[in-house]
Amino acid sequence: MSYTFDKTLKGVPFEDAVLRVTDELKKEGFGILTEIDVRETLKKKIDVDFRKYRILGACNPGYAHKALLAENKIGAFLPCSVIVQELDNGDVEVSTVDPAASMSSVRNEKLEEIASEVREKLQKVIDSL
Amino acid sequence: MSYTFDKTLKGVPFEDAVLRVTDELKKEGFGILTEIDVRETLKKKIDVDFRKYRILGACNPGYAHKALLAENKIGAFLPCSVIVQELDNGDVEVSTVDPAASMSSVRNEKLEEIASEVREKLQKVIDSL
Repeated sequence: MSYTFDKTLKGVPFEDAVLRVTDELKKEGFGILTEIDVRETLKKKIDVDFRKYRILGACNPGYAHKALLAENKIGAFLPCSVIVQELDNGDVEVSTVDPAASMSSVRNEKLEEIASEVREKLQKVIDSL
Repeated sequence: MSYTFDKTLKGVPFEDAVLRVTDELKKEGFGILTEIDVRETLKKKIDVDFRKYRILGACNPGYAHKALLAENKIGAFLPCSVIVQELDNGDVEVSTVDPAASMSSVRNEKLEEIASEVREKLQKVIDSL
């Protein structure tokens, strides 16, 4: 089972890819609540070199609220992670978590419906890149 | 399958619970990279009232690095979410995601080993509260 939706952007600078996915997420109602610069964090904390790799924490507040009402510990899977990473050949790959995969261990029918709608939106974001 | 490790803290003020789990996480090598005040975010973005609910993004950089080398899209499940929420009776519940649950859709033996070590550490954090 694949656990992400992915798109490789050829010839797009890294920061442009971050802006582009941020913009497409916004169109689907997701704001970026958190941002982790993995490369910078690993350098600072354990002094290792790593490629450009960003983790955006995307949240659609309406869906997050519904999910929290349906399942009070669903915050364990929030926000939805969106990865932007530089590949070996210089291309940039954007991936969003598939909520159906991350939340597969949660048995809750109401939540499954919500996750399925969020899944469609994230798939749409990736398709539109 | 439960997807979190949990502990209810009786008679502990909310902010003290946040500090206490932050401290225990630190002892196991996890820093807090992100913090989402869900109550504040939902109020601001969609004007709904919600109980006190915080999502901390905890990361042990050594394990995160190993995980990223083993599985390049594992950022989809990083950082590890730790929830602090106020219950109806005023008690505070702390929950950490169980990485074995969140990453159950990833088929990668090397990663499973790493997730299992992180799992032990998060379980220890909860036990020590």
